[in-house]
Amino acid sequence: MSKIDERLKELNIELPNPPLPVASYVPYVQTGNQVLISGQISIAPDGGIKGKVGELSLEEGQKAARLCGLNLLAQMKAACGGDLDRVVRIVKLGGFVNVTPDFDPIPAVINGCSDLMVEVFGDVGKHARSAVGVANLPLGFAVEVDAIIEVK
Amino acid sequence: MSKIDERLKELNIELPNPPLPVASYVPYVQTGNQVLISGQISIAPDGGIKGKVGELSLEEGQKAARLCGLNLLAQMKAACGGDLDRVVRIVKLGGFVNVTPDFDPIPAVINGCSDLMVEVFGDVGKHARSAVGVANLPLGFAVEVDAIIEVK
Amino acid sequence: MSKIDERLKELNIELPNPPLPVASYVPYVQTGNQVLISGQISIAPDGGIKGKVGELSLEEGQKAARLCGLNLLAQMKAACGGDLDRVVRIVKLGGFVNVTPDFDPIPAVINGCSDLMVEVFGDVGKHARSAVGVANLPLGFAVEVDAIIEVK
Repeated sequence: MSKIDERLKELNIELPNPPLPVASYVPYVQTGNQVLISGQISIAPDGGIKGKVGELSLEEGQKAARLCGLNLLAQMKAACGGDLDRVVRIVKLGGFVNVTPDFDPIPAVINGCSDLMVEVFGDVGKHARSAVGVANLPLGFAVEVDAIIEVK
Repeated sequence: MSKIDERLKELNIELPNPPLPVASYVPYVQTGNQVLISGQISIAPDGGIKGKVGELSLEEGQKAARLCGLNLLAQMKAACGGDLDRVVRIVKLGGFVNVTPDFDPIPAVINGCSDLMVEVFGDVGKHARSAVGVANLPLGFAVEVDAIIEVK
Repeated sequence: MSKIDERLKELNIELPNPPLPVASYVPYVQTGNQVLISGQISIAPDGGIKGKVGELSLEEGQKAARLCGLNLLAQMKAACGGDLDRVVRIVKLGGFVNVTPDFDPIPAVINGCSDLMVEVFGDVGKHARSAVGVANLPLGFAVEVDAIIEVK
């Protein structure tokens, strides 16, 4: 079991199956040492979290961002042939929150994903980030996050 | 004629002239083996497609995304000194759809661009992707897509 | 004093302290020769510029984008250990404007940031770019811009 798998176990985190793209693209592409991961929405086996944050609470938004993070972890694991110890660095997260136009604690929402990366990877999980509020997201989900990671 | 030019001919696709930036930046920059291409809007010689998808139909949105794809191909060709066979991989597309706040079949819109990449490049065209709905786009165009590609 | 520091002095530009992230992430991450810089908002020592462009004027939007550019320069300087001459190229800017749904001169807003890069770096500052209008931004700021640069 890889060190990161052990860490996931300690944290009682069970990764979902990596979600299939809902359209004609692939979940990730490696170029050089970078893996670019498709935007992961706040979907989960129980349906996940849909709606606009602002109508949803901040806490629900944070849970939604954490779901995106779990889906990113699942894609990273697939991209690394099952071995998350191959992740050298979470380089950048691009966070998109489906918001009502007056909702602006957007960083606090995306922390649901960012905090997960640091919980799981420690310093390796510390990333650059953008976070914006958008008018809608695929199928009405509440949050979408894409990622660039460096692998060995 | 390059293989990809032959493929474009088979598909009856004639590339537009690569659109000039509508502001003070350049259409693409190469760094290492990556070329980052500026966001291409749904502009075309006949004017292209403006408006918010939701007021526009899904089909019009898809056509708009395909126009973005044609503009991306034109920029890629310029970036490769005219030889699209130098494209090793379409790595990532970033899709932005100008939407009404209630329109959410956003992946289906961006497929208009994604499908074009796979039609033209086959497996080389399979890319990671994000797709979000935004409040507006430059000059009111319906879709904008940027890209990262790997070249040789 | 580095050449770029001299240029900043000529332009009477004093860089702010690099803003601290407003959440659990870091301001930049280097991977290979690329540095990815977190989205910088239009914050400044005097508070900066908040609000939706469309309610704010175009000119206020441009000033906000320039503030994002100053913050990006400050982060670049930190990422380069104080020596901006290590910047090989501004590769890509990702511009997000907090807009009312009817405001569309979005490229003109982001020019406030793009023009600054070219003023400071000359040809090295010419970048690829995306520019979109979003429903809201962190803490209601008017503009956010992230960046990818190449360093030596």
